Amino acid sequence: MNVTNNHTAGGRNAEDTLIDPLNKGLGAFQQALTAADAKALNWNLLREDLSLPTAVLYEERMNHNLQWMQQFVSEYGVKLAPHGKTTMAPKLFARQLAGGAWGITLATAHQTRVAYQHGVRRVIMANQLVGKQNMAIIADLLNDPSFEFSCLVDSADGVDQLGAFFQARQQKLHVLLELGPDGGRTGIRNPQQQEAVLAALARWPDNLVLAGVEVYEGVLKEEADIRAFLQHAVACAKQLAAAGRFTARTTGEAARPVILTGAGSAWYDVVAEEFAKTEIGLPLDVVLRPGCYLTHDVGIYRAAQAQIQTRNPIARKMRSKLQPALQLWAYVQSIPEAGKAIIALGKRDAAFDAGLPLPALQYRPGGAAPTATPAHWQLTGMMDQHAYLQISAGDDIKVGDMLGFDISHPCLTFDKWRHIAVLDPQHQVVDVIQTFF
Amino acid sequence: MNVTNNHTAGGRNAEDTLIDPLNKGLGAFQQALTAADAKALNWNLLREDLSLPTAVLYEERMNHNLQWMQQFVSEYGVKLAPHGKTTMAPKLFARQLAGGAWGITLATAHQTRVAYQHGVRRVIMANQLVGKQNMAIIADLLNDPSFEFSCLVDSADGVDQLGAFFQARQQKLHVLLELGPDGGRTGIRNPQQQEAVLAALARWPDNLVLAGVEVYEGVLKEEADIRAFLQHAVACAKQLAAAGRFTARTTGEAARPVILTGAGSAWYDVVAEEFAKTEIGLPLDVVLRPGCYLTHDVGIYRAAQAQIQTRNPIARKMRSKLQPALQLWAYVQSIPEAGKAIIALGKRDAAFDAGLPLPALQYRPGGAAPTATPAHWQLTGMMDQHAYLQISAGDDIKVGDMLGFDISHPCLTFDKWRHIAVLDPQHQVVDVIQTFF
Repeated sequence: MNVTNNHTAGGRNAEDTLIDPLNKGLGAFQQALTAADAKALNWNLLREDLSLPTAVLYEERMNHNLQWMQQFVSEYGVKLAPHGKTTMAPKLFARQLAGGAWGITLATAHQTRVAYQHGVRRVIMANQLVGKQNMAIIADLLNDPSFEFSCLVDSADGVDQLGAFFQARQQKLHVLLELGPDGGRTGIRNPQQQEAVLAALARWPDNLVLAGVEVYEGVLKEEADIRAFLQHAVACAKQLAAAGRFTARTTGEAARPVILTGAGSAWYDVVAEEFAKTEIGLPLDVVLRPGCYLTHDVGIYRAAQAQIQTRNPIARKMRSKLQPALQLWAYVQSIPEAGKAIIALGKRDAAFDAGLPLPALQYRPGGAAPTATPAHWQLTGMMDQHAYLQISAGDDIKVGDMLGFDISHPCLTFDKWRHIAVLDPQHQVVDVIQTFF
Repeated sequence: MNVTNNHTAGGRNAEDTLIDPLNKGLGAFQQALTAADAKALNWNLLREDLSLPTAVLYEERMNHNLQWMQQFVSEYGVKLAPHGKTTMAPKLFARQLAGGAWGITLATAHQTRVAYQHGVRRVIMANQLVGKQNMAIIADLLNDPSFEFSCLVDSADGVDQLGAFFQARQQKLHVLLELGPDGGRTGIRNPQQQEAVLAALARWPDNLVLAGVEVYEGVLKEEADIRAFLQHAVACAKQLAAAGRFTARTTGEAARPVILTGAGSAWYDVVAEEFAKTEIGLPLDVVLRPGCYLTHDVGIYRAAQAQIQTRNPIARKMRSKLQPALQLWAYVQSIPEAGKAIIALGKRDAAFDAGLPLPALQYRPGGAAPTATPAHWQLTGMMDQHAYLQISAGDDIKVGDMLGFDISHPCLTFDKWRHIAVLDPQHQVVDVIQTFF
């Protein structure tokens, strides 16, 4: 159990977090309130109780996706540490952990602190830990012996900076050797770099613990390249184990299994296949780290998931698919030309780097239920606070209509919103989650 | 005086806003504190007291820019309502108003509420006001008779929706007729649309007050087109005045002058030239609305400002220029290949839609002062939490180095940060400003 629902020293309970009435996208209230209070206010999206534009999460779809992924990793006997950078919503971290996740993956010291303060006690920081203040944040959290943390190393300089810092603090930091493909992002490229990092680690035997191997395969685009890279990671883990390099085991300092981890949201099935049966002669946790599955999308991750559904036998045999659980709602504010409507939705409200939001639903206030938008309605551009919607002369669209948009790239949509309403199928607000970006 | 520094009913004092220790980019503290408390903590960027990545504002440069723009508008005898959507930082709104701004421009009901709650009492919402909850937000603020507000109309449907809402509330709303060029964004395109809007306004004589004319010229790209469009707006204002359409004046309901307003951050000089001497036979406030001048940038707005410095006689005779006042600082986290460094700075931290951040300064912790980065160091891509920096083999760059980046597009940089440290020239934190996105 990695979540506490009680207040700890300096900790927070996601349920108790107060919602600032000056946040955008919510209903009317005068004083800061809790999510439970907000639910009692009985807001309904279709009754125009929310100030649009707003982002909403669909409760049932999120729960479906959560169970889908947990079942998927269970079939492979591997562990799940969903990437928390996607949502940065501690309440969703808690659901993921309660649903069976092994831990939470994060990208920065700041994100790790947010998760810890909300009760998360097992974190892979899938990134280098650099800089005095960032190291201090992690060092403070490591004063709690129940906090299991590891971060990445890929350079001797980085290792020596960590070693000096944690030696001065007389603390022990677990690190994972990051491997990276040529032309990729971070990560060790060749044996010379690897030896330099291992030699640096050997300079700080009391403070740095080599605890596993990490990759991010998502910088590669071809399955064959990805499989070869993953096999290289498996071979590296075996070699390090055989050489007695996993010091956490050999020195007996920690009973934690060695970690072998990879997987973004597009190739987690291939990582599962390549990593699942790995034997290194030591206790080993294989950990997958997809983040976008929880809300999914209808853009880049729908496309990636369609590939997974095609190529992966376990995904194929599962009855259902991931469902898009995050939408944006906004008003038609102007129809100045016959073929163009202007929507009160902008780059401040939605990701736009991997395709623009896609019109899905139309609702005229006072009407029955939302209806699907015509296929020819498409956004053609966005500005800070506006979007251009291509329509045709004679379409049934009016200023004041509400449009629901599906999205592409959940990460860069979540970070536009400080609180997000969670809806039931009747568009009733049943919860409000807070984000920390 | 449009700012109050005292608490009003339901209002906030920007100085008293508490900073959440879970915000990114700040120094170490355990409990929420005020900006004054933060200043007392004596953080210094170069001493690595802040958790990077971080965004910082340079106090002297901001003040310089603030004075520059105020002098510019004063030379033309026009008024300044800086677009607040850029920063959404009430503390900066207060500085702009204290520096002589006539009011603040905003884009949404939510933004207007944030400004009002922090003491702003004159707002142009340079956008259509659409939707029940958004109208309710504005209606609530209008219960304060000291609050001067106007928003845009460009359709009969929009007017009728506003009319019905404010009639039910027995309130009066001031609206500006928005004109838009063909192919542009919002705004009336032709006389037929204009007549339809005016006819709709006539249906709500007790609740909607036609208070002026508004344009946003920034959707056009050529100076000649912009001048023609602005001249059309002037002619429209004269025609409406002559026809007795500015009901605020003719009914004596409000003593407020008619408003003629335009100008984003790229063409405000041309708007000043075209609008400054307008006479419509009624008291008239010509209001310019640039927003990005306060922090400026080294990207799209530096380019736009260079044009202004070239074509505008007043800008030419002013001794100084706008200065970039917003920077991002981040660590080098990995140098995995001879020509590539990975920077711990991502799309979560910086605008990337109008050019990537530009390396400006390098600082090695413990060293003397930051130095200019070589010209060949350029970002070639960004991911959510990482940036790719092109370097050359043999360059003096190390994991753990701090890099300062100038930016392009302040608006989409501000909205990544909930609190931003303000630095003096010694990189000491002298203030912390809060944003509301």
